[in-house]
Amino acid sequence: MNHQVTLAHRPVALPMESDFALVESPAPEAGEGQFLVRTLYLSLDPYMRGWIRENPGYTAPMPLGAVMPGGVVGVVEDSRHPGFQPGDIVEGMLGWRRYGVTDGAGFRKVDPSLAPISTALGLLGMPGLTAYFGATAIAQTKPGEQVFVSGAAGAVGSVAGQIGKILGCYVAGSAGSDDKVRHVLEDLGFDAAFNYRGREDYPAALREVCPKGIDVYFDNVDGLMTDAAVAHMNLRGRIAVCGQISQYNLKEPELGPRWLFQTIVKRLRIEGFLIPDFAPRIPEALAQMAAWYKEGRFQYRETIADGLENAPAAFIGMLTGRNTGKQLVKVTEL
Amino acid sequence: MNHQVTLAHRPVALPMESDFALVESPAPEAGEGQFLVRTLYLSLDPYMRGWIRENPGYTAPMPLGAVMPGGVVGVVEDSRHPGFQPGDIVEGMLGWRRYGVTDGAGFRKVDPSLAPISTALGLLGMPGLTAYFGATAIAQTKPGEQVFVSGAAGAVGSVAGQIGKILGCYVAGSAGSDDKVRHVLEDLGFDAAFNYRGREDYPAALREVCPKGIDVYFDNVDGLMTDAAVAHMNLRGRIAVCGQISQYNLKEPELGPRWLFQTIVKRLRIEGFLIPDFAPRIPEALAQMAAWYKEGRFQYRETIADGLENAPAAFIGMLTGRNTGKQLVKVTEL
Repeated sequence: MNHQVTLAHRPVALPMESDFALVESPAPEAGEGQFLVRTLYLSLDPYMRGWIRENPGYTAPMPLGAVMPGGVVGVVEDSRHPGFQPGDIVEGMLGWRRYGVTDGAGFRKVDPSLAPISTALGLLGMPGLTAYFGATAIAQTKPGEQVFVSGAAGAVGSVAGQIGKILGCYVAGSAGSDDKVRHVLEDLGFDAAFNYRGREDYPAALREVCPKGIDVYFDNVDGLMTDAAVAHMNLRGRIAVCGQISQYNLKEPELGPRWLFQTIVKRLRIEGFLIPDFAPRIPEALAQMAAWYKEGRFQYRETIADGLENAPAAFIGMLTGRNTGKQLVKVTEL
Repeated sequence: MNHQVTLAHRPVALPMESDFALVESPAPEAGEGQFLVRTLYLSLDPYMRGWIRENPGYTAPMPLGAVMPGGVVGVVEDSRHPGFQPGDIVEGMLGWRRYGVTDGAGFRKVDPSLAPISTALGLLGMPGLTAYFGATAIAQTKPGEQVFVSGAAGAVGSVAGQIGKILGCYVAGSAGSDDKVRHVLEDLGFDAAFNYRGREDYPAALREVCPKGIDVYFDNVDGLMTDAAVAHMNLRGRIAVCGQISQYNLKEPELGPRWLFQTIVKRLRIEGFLIPDFAPRIPEALAQMAAWYKEGRFQYRETIADGLENAPAAFIGMLTGRNTGKQLVKVTEL
């Protein structure tokens, strides 16, 4: 039997478990040119909150009753596709399901000898690529610069900060618990970090952790943290707008002080980005990330929920910051 | 005798005439390596509102009692500087004064055969360069793109829109009166424009004047207009942040809806800029602008106040949009 998680109700604020339904159905079969994938790990990512909005912006609205979209690492169980064989480990957008068939569009093979296969959804997958292209192509980070990463213990932020260190920068970050701050400092090698839940005065916190200002702000959160970061930017600073998790569960847009004038005063460049825009450069980027991984330059952590039926709770937990590092769901065993 | 305008009180909102003082003193004399300039035209620019703030951002705060800074076109009356002769027409930051001495730093000679000398403060001066570098280096405007200019009848916006037309774009704008809208459409050759004081529903107005969305937004105003423009941007749009005149006279920062997420959805790039950053490229830019002027590609308008004593009222008028095109003060006759 197949298990799939569908969208039962459209959440207006923070999603609830009852917004999702676990549906049983017969397992699908691969047609001509298709292959059947059994999910090993499902990736839970903040962008999914956007996809289930009434007006998500960068994709069509998802109808009620549809299976939740999401990247998985899985194993090919059956194939009528010349490029994929049973036993291949693959990564692609299969959705929140135990079994799925695909014609292979957007799927890639994962090399299990390179790193644990779950990293194809994290460090060596979309979050890692987001950190890589954000730090390099978007922010054009240079050695010796001052980097600040909000959401520093998250799947993207944790990699963005480590890439900043690899590039020879001073790197500071914010995270949502004392444990995460310890992780960021001790495991990930950030130079400084603070717990944003522990203090309200972000401008003062930023002066402490970034005493030389901020040249590159890797923004995963928006809100008051971004207000404070903008005010603390150095001349010709760059802001890579990667995520805005503080805003995703609001019913109405939050009001904040207008600060666009600061972009003139400081000649700031602000740029939003999505990884599909970098498609032609992804193989090169993954090769670089894998090389750094082999050299021992990366630490990473995963928060793994067990069983597809626990995916909704884990997703809600991730939106409220209960994960450290990459949030995954282990769906079946290899 | 010399006349100078000084800052008497620091305005907290819209400046009043009583915030300025007209001071008489003996005319200065040129020392060794200096020359004496008699002001013909004084330039009034929105950036001056920033300079007289308590915390202006990109320059040191101006002390009370100091002469107001400002660009002028003047004539050299006496010179002990090898590079400048009596009778030379020059442009530079002399300040709001009838006479001033300078060592020539930041001054340039103006060629009266090129265009009326007052244009050295407008079309062929800082506002024109702001439009030029904003449209080219910052926004990287390409032929066939959809350009929207707020403050379209102002000194910068009027040129930015015409450069958009020269570059082969569709150009629309907003301005603050029906007369300005007529000017923008009939004289400056914009494809569409609307009076932002006449209607509140900026999103609907933008859908009308930019039916194909906005690829390049030249922002002179911020506020609700920028909120609406951001929402109407096309994929990979660029926002050149040039001025924020709607915000300059506020006691407290205005609150607005957070929209940074739109930069991800649409992969927007937002960049603020100031002309001194482009110093090495200014001669090349002025040559291009002068060539376009000679070809009859530019229309421009000036609003000219008469007499230095009327500069404060004219400055306040400009901040509230009473000017069309470049706001000048005629200080003395050539």
